[in-house]
Amino acid sequence: MNFQLDKRLAKDTAKVCELNLCYVGLVKDSRYPWLVLVPQLEGIIEVSDLDDGAQGLMWREVNKCSLALQAIFPGYKINLGALGNVVSQLHIHLVVRHDEDAAWPGPVWGKGEAEPYDIAVLETRIENLQRKLL
Amino acid sequence: MNFQLDKRLAKDTAKVCELNLCYVGLVKDSRYPWLVLVPQLEGIIEVSDLDDGAQGLMWREVNKCSLALQAIFPGYKINLGALGNVVSQLHIHLVVRHDEDAAWPGPVWGKGEAEPYDIAVLETRIENLQRKLL
Repeated sequence: MNFQLDKRLAKDTAKVCELNLCYVGLVKDSRYPWLVLVPQLEGIIEVSDLDDGAQGLMWREVNKCSLALQAIFPGYKINLGALGNVVSQLHIHLVVRHDEDAAWPGPVWGKGEAEPYDIAVLETRIENLQRKLL
Repeated sequence: MNFQLDKRLAKDTAKVCELNLCYVGLVKDSRYPWLVLVPQLEGIIEVSDLDDGAQGLMWREVNKCSLALQAIFPGYKINLGALGNVVSQLHIHLVVRHDEDAAWPGPVWGKGEAEPYDIAVLETRIENLQRKLL
């Protein structure tokens, strides 16, 4: 398997874990709890590039991550997206949203600049997610 | 089953068809070929509100619609999204994108005003989609 995580995705995320299919990264933007899942298969751009089995596995892993976010941030809205207009390697966004966040009710993509995490906050968030996912 | 399509989704889309689980509507915005799929089950807000079987069926229907769009608009990018910040009833967007469209490379949601279809263009587009989906 010659999969390599896209350089921009690698730069913009901190690794949470690898599930059976997907790399799971936390986006380094403290404005939103925000995960990105990347199926670790080469040359995948659209969801439809995955065979049926891989699609099913990917969506189950997306659901697992969504439930983890909902458990840690109860009562918030989840936004799910697969755009790929800038980074073509297939990646699924899961973003925790609420009605006072920086982009509400619009989408988060392309809105303002990322705000860096305090490193202790980042580490705690990753640990909390790992506890739910592993 | 007491499912009722959300009023705003009903107003903003023209019906293409019903698949086993989902209502499929074409968004009345001629700037983008744009489908919305709505699982016809009551009280669903997050994807994770669906049980595993319904999630699998929904994603297979989303994939079927994505392949139909890619067959009609070859070489374009598909954007997939489930936001629900404005209309809470779960609905999955599939939007055909290209690098000269009105919002590229940003997301389409909340960007500018919808442009009405010429009725003949709308009808042709719906027929072409029905031919792929039914």
